[in-house]
Amino acid sequence: MLAAVPLSVKRRAVPGRYRQDAADVSQRELSVTIVAGVRLEASKPAASLDRLVELLRTDLAGVNTLILERMQSPVALIPQLAGHIVAAGGKRLRPMLTLAAARMCGYRPTDDARPRHVALAAAVEFIHTATLLHDDVVDASDLRRGLATANSVWGNKPSVLVGDFLFSRAFQLMVEDGSLKVLAILSHASAVIAEGEVLQLVTSNDTTTDEEAYLAVIRAKTAQLFAAASKIGAVVCDRPEAEELALESYGRNLGIAFQLVDDMLDYSADEAALGKTIGDDFREGKITLPIVLAFARCDEAERPFWRRTLEELDQKPGDLEHAVQLLRKHGALRDTLERARDYGGLARSALDLFRDGPEKRALIEAVDFSVARAY
Amino acid sequence: MLAAVPLSVKRRAVPGRYRQDAADVSQRELSVTIVAGVRLEASKPAASLDRLVELLRTDLAGVNTLILERMQSPVALIPQLAGHIVAAGGKRLRPMLTLAAARMCGYRPTDDARPRHVALAAAVEFIHTATLLHDDVVDASDLRRGLATANSVWGNKPSVLVGDFLFSRAFQLMVEDGSLKVLAILSHASAVIAEGEVLQLVTSNDTTTDEEAYLAVIRAKTAQLFAAASKIGAVVCDRPEAEELALESYGRNLGIAFQLVDDMLDYSADEAALGKTIGDDFREGKITLPIVLAFARCDEAERPFWRRTLEELDQKPGDLEHAVQLLRKHGALRDTLERARDYGGLARSALDLFRDGPEKRALIEAVDFSVARAY
Repeated sequence: MLAAVPLSVKRRAVPGRYRQDAADVSQRELSVTIVAGVRLEASKPAASLDRLVELLRTDLAGVNTLILERMQSPVALIPQLAGHIVAAGGKRLRPMLTLAAARMCGYRPTDDARPRHVALAAAVEFIHTATLLHDDVVDASDLRRGLATANSVWGNKPSVLVGDFLFSRAFQLMVEDGSLKVLAILSHASAVIAEGEVLQLVTSNDTTTDEEAYLAVIRAKTAQLFAAASKIGAVVCDRPEAEELALESYGRNLGIAFQLVDDMLDYSADEAALGKTIGDDFREGKITLPIVLAFARCDEAERPFWRRTLEELDQKPGDLEHAVQLLRKHGALRDTLERARDYGGLARSALDLFRDGPEKRALIEAVDFSVARAY
Repeated sequence: MLAAVPLSVKRRAVPGRYRQDAADVSQRELSVTIVAGVRLEASKPAASLDRLVELLRTDLAGVNTLILERMQSPVALIPQLAGHIVAAGGKRLRPMLTLAAARMCGYRPTDDARPRHVALAAAVEFIHTATLLHDDVVDASDLRRGLATANSVWGNKPSVLVGDFLFSRAFQLMVEDGSLKVLAILSHASAVIAEGEVLQLVTSNDTTTDEEAYLAVIRAKTAQLFAAASKIGAVVCDRPEAEELALESYGRNLGIAFQLVDDMLDYSADEAALGKTIGDDFREGKITLPIVLAFARCDEAERPFWRRTLEELDQKPGDLEHAVQLLRKHGALRDTLERARDYGGLARSALDLFRDGPEKRALIEAVDFSVARAY
């Protein structure tokens, strides 16, 4: 399996996913890693977002301050609920793309005014958070299936309305920034994300969904915001269109790789130890690439299982385990990861246009991290 | 009761709500109306939006075309669901405010390009439609109370996501228009609307809500968009700030009057013949002004009724009728209408700044219509 990892030793001394600490890389470790590769595969991933976080520490602090400031409202429930999701908010990967892209393109804040890339990174995070809140909305039928998790504290309606509030705040931040180009990119992205989310609903519980339809969903619901977040980094620096497009391509391919790995992880039972809950997609009947591949490859005898569990959502204890077994039998998880690596490779190549530097290296490591999460 | 109607004979020969046809107004009719006022109160309202619709016929057709065009998507469920609400979409009152305000401020479209006021009116309607869709979202607890009406066909999630799509489309229209000032006004309005909707949730089922808290809710959830829609009419004409503020004040006060009458109509059982369903607010335990007033005026013996029906939502057959009886006993409906008239008067006065003309007269009739709906 190691051969499938796109080794770009020129760019990175060691394939990110095997590295413990980027600063300690040496040729000796590289050879050790390759020899021990297969065995090490079960160990913790080495590629991380640490380099990106370290490089952007000050900018990220600015983003967090701004997020806290702009989620305030005299209506106390808004900061309460928003704080709940913003605190749990995880990696800040999308705003970091804006920050790092802007830095890589040479952005230097002027004087003591709020740096533009920080304000726009906060806007990107608000859009992402609003999407998460709206994604938590459930129908009564879902509740009956026991799926009400994320919005169980607050209910549907506050989740929707606070999402709307944060979405509006995102646009207010962009308007203050004053770039119509940025506004065009992010309002377009928002429309595409909504389209992607609806398309995902439409393909849910439909085992005839093919790879193309699945890719259309994740390009829209996930990759569009990664692409926009990266692209606006070049826009704030007034860089040539070629650089905007390169960053857009970087973000889009990274986003696809990221989502593919997410979808794979939802069935990677042996990773439960890492704290990742598995089986959510299965329980909802979401048709992700592992399912698309396994269904396309399965024989007549297996088809009724998928139809019962994913179309009719008639699931029994042991079904998830059986699903994982079928996915492994048909190489569906392996090939999903393979696709993720390919898109990761495209994301890396998109950065060829830019000179080497700490931001570029950190953005490349973000790709490695996104794929390495699979181990 | 007639004395309470702010008669401005200089502006309108006859108070709008008694008029059959604005074109036929004469002094003779005025005196007849006043003499017969109390008796006529039960008859059908005469003030309507017809004048506004007639005046803006071409512009409105442009808005409708643009709405149909921009709600399209390769994801078929989006135009299906959006079409459902847009077709049922009613009066187009908010976009008409933008159109009429722009026309009153002297807006003349240039050449064959899409008129700015039409594009922005469509954006306003998209924001309104998105709000309606998100307002339809229900929690499982609501469903158990039998309240699932509006989104029963599609479910919560598509309603939320299509709302997001339309909201994004609104911003795309504004970005194409290119005015950062308009973008600032409408993104601010969107944030305030979301705050108002959350505040409404917070005050629901809470009989201690006072008039001030209630007004804060409707200023935000309803009047803010009326205000913004009217104000941007002046903005597209680059009119002085005084005119922007006058139109903002017109819209805000009209919006408050409109919502007050809406809230009153929800208890005006004798208007059921007009096709208005009543009792929705009561069944949800919404605390509107009629309730605030009746609760403040009720004696110790009546309080448990309101607590049981609105706080605990423990409602029995006959409770709505009893509620209406209590509202009437305490003059709560009458005084809600009185407040609506006052705000209507403020809306009218706000237009004093503008010269007489067909748009101004139509905007004044929109105020009369909003209050006259109560009869």
